[in-house]
Amino acid sequence: MLSLDKIYQAAYILKNVIRPTDLIYAPNINENSKIYLKTENLQVTGSFKIRGSYNKMSLLTPEEKQKGVVACSAGNHAQGVALAAQKNNIKCTICLPDNAPISKIEATKKYGAEICLVEGVYDDAYKKAIELKEEMGYTFIHPFDDLDVIAGQGTIGLELLDQLPDMEAVIVPIGGGGLIAGVAFAIKELNPKIKVYGVQACGAASMYNSIKNENIQCLSTVSTIADGIAVKEPGVHTFKLCQKYVDDICVVSDDEISTAILTLIEHQKLITEGAGAVAVAAALFDKLPIGGKKTVCLLSGGNIDVTILSRVISRGLIKTGRSCIMNIELIDKPGQLKGVSSIIADLGGNVVSVHHERSSENSDINGCYLRIALETRNFEHIEQIKKALTDAGYKIECIN
Amino acid sequence: MLSLDKIYQAAYILKNVIRPTDLIYAPNINENSKIYLKTENLQVTGSFKIRGSYNKMSLLTPEEKQKGVVACSAGNHAQGVALAAQKNNIKCTICLPDNAPISKIEATKKYGAEICLVEGVYDDAYKKAIELKEEMGYTFIHPFDDLDVIAGQGTIGLELLDQLPDMEAVIVPIGGGGLIAGVAFAIKELNPKIKVYGVQACGAASMYNSIKNENIQCLSTVSTIADGIAVKEPGVHTFKLCQKYVDDICVVSDDEISTAILTLIEHQKLITEGAGAVAVAAALFDKLPIGGKKTVCLLSGGNIDVTILSRVISRGLIKTGRSCIMNIELIDKPGQLKGVSSIIADLGGNVVSVHHERSSENSDINGCYLRIALETRNFEHIEQIKKALTDAGYKIECIN
Repeated sequence: MLSLDKIYQAAYILKNVIRPTDLIYAPNINENSKIYLKTENLQVTGSFKIRGSYNKMSLLTPEEKQKGVVACSAGNHAQGVALAAQKNNIKCTICLPDNAPISKIEATKKYGAEICLVEGVYDDAYKKAIELKEEMGYTFIHPFDDLDVIAGQGTIGLELLDQLPDMEAVIVPIGGGGLIAGVAFAIKELNPKIKVYGVQACGAASMYNSIKNENIQCLSTVSTIADGIAVKEPGVHTFKLCQKYVDDICVVSDDEISTAILTLIEHQKLITEGAGAVAVAAALFDKLPIGGKKTVCLLSGGNIDVTILSRVISRGLIKTGRSCIMNIELIDKPGQLKGVSSIIADLGGNVVSVHHERSSENSDINGCYLRIALETRNFEHIEQIKKALTDAGYKIECIN
Repeated sequence: MLSLDKIYQAAYILKNVIRPTDLIYAPNINENSKIYLKTENLQVTGSFKIRGSYNKMSLLTPEEKQKGVVACSAGNHAQGVALAAQKNNIKCTICLPDNAPISKIEATKKYGAEICLVEGVYDDAYKKAIELKEEMGYTFIHPFDDLDVIAGQGTIGLELLDQLPDMEAVIVPIGGGGLIAGVAFAIKELNPKIKVYGVQACGAASMYNSIKNENIQCLSTVSTIADGIAVKEPGVHTFKLCQKYVDDICVVSDDEISTAILTLIEHQKLITEGAGAVAVAAALFDKLPIGGKKTVCLLSGGNIDVTILSRVISRGLIKTGRSCIMNIELIDKPGQLKGVSSIIADLGGNVVSVHHERSSENSDINGCYLRIALETRNFEHIEQIKKALTDAGYKIECIN
């Protein structure tokens, strides 16, 4: 049974391990409510996961500690478990699918964990972890469906009540449900008037479906930019706790998540991963009844791959008119490229790349086309450049 | 005269205006010293500037307040002054060169300032501001060379002494010198044993040169990615305070600054602008004698243009082997593209773009070349792909 006692105990255990992360007021996220950001992306290991895994490991018996632990994850849980094991001086093995990103493997190794690369996907790595548990007597550290893990995550609820005693709502990302189960329990047991909302990614709405169907549902596949919450099936404990303590759950799309990531970068100077940004996505796109309410969005983590980050930013630039690609049909005679480029330069457009090709099948026999990637100021600026080029006789197609 | 009194008074004045920004331990920045990050990039308006301008405006006489203020800036100072004026209910005009980025203009407008766009460059906007001051009786709010502004920035020094009483060194960005003058004064007056170091960008080393020459030097041009500290000439007050209180100043290159920005993103989940990252650049590249010392790097601001950010990230990906462009010479016969792409796919490379062209002047008459942009894992991975392609008979050139 989960209890406030266990969460208070976890808070004490974590005292010298975690950072009490800042709560930052962010009035621009949603103009109808007062949004605060709980910055667990700035937590040690870059996510809240250290709270649960450290608490769990501290509570193992001396014999269990002596034997060691095993976990299966390619993400934040792996780093949380590895660091917790290092600090508790426990032998630790992490099973990972062999296609896991190098950066995550390196980050986990850095905390001293033994890495066991398993051919295949997550499910294969999970099977291997269970095998190791049986064979070697290791304790398996579940990423979410474990009451000591849940109690650890619940410490965030206590911190929030301390940092913003008059908060009226909190929005929490849901993957397997460990984070929201702990946070909702802590908050509702102490102040049932505070609304607790969950958010899932459209492409991995397992808890959302399960709650709607009043029964645990298992997805056959998951697909979302928010890999940290791409979970096929909620846990038994977490499902029950969500049923009892969570007021509502909504879903957000990958596009909404990308916008949230970019908004947090531009306006709050914070890096979040997909999973870490879903609460802000829900607030930005008015998915939940938080109007007029002092609302906390929980930023659960910041471990985003830089390659993905780069894509999110590029896409964001296109979607806000700050970058665009134009296809321009030219007559194939000298001076055309010069003509186009001086119009663009005069209007302050910044050319990033040029692709000039003759005789594509869509142009006249003596025509050719020019594909130009541009940095622009906004959509108005793009229209201005398009108009100037059209007025000068060029045929333009804007292809984003 | 600057005094501790004035800085303590500023701290009181700022109590309900600014956030006491977090100090975050960041052990990975420099393995020989203990680095802490003072996160003024998370300050209201995205930089420390609000401290100085708010303090300055609060200390104006009722008559001065009634007449209004004017400032000249396209950056953080503009936003700081605009918000400070709004909160003090003072009429505020900001002069900007007309080529200033739209995003900065919009951010300043949002705080209710009147924008005066001036044809030309910064110097022209500055002249216009001084004209307005004369004509309209406005008070000119200097970005750095003003003792009330310096006192406001100095409050960061007090916060640091409070947050990390046993710190041994602090590294501070220098543009005009207002920030370091205030911080150094506060810290040295209270504990002269703490080292205070400054950092400038190579391309705008005006204070660095002035201190070395023991005389204020004016640069004819400045050029750096760190636009927030691209200042041609230090102030009179700030120069004297630096001479007296700053232990040493170093310079960092744009490449080093870019690496610092990317390091802060990947390892600390924090967005900084160029100027905001120079202290970390100095620590990363061992520019200062901080070995074994508890050292604070001051992250002065986070207002980086997303377009610049995108370039910094792309460059960082190339420099760490996580993206690359390959030129591949092919024989112009069917199946070649397929051959290349299956080798790349089998090795886990992720193709981002393909440019396939016949008869470039560098290839045989029936040759053609393929330019492929790839996402890769690291330099080893790139070598692996290159080797496999070479072994299969393709001629490769890697062009980053």
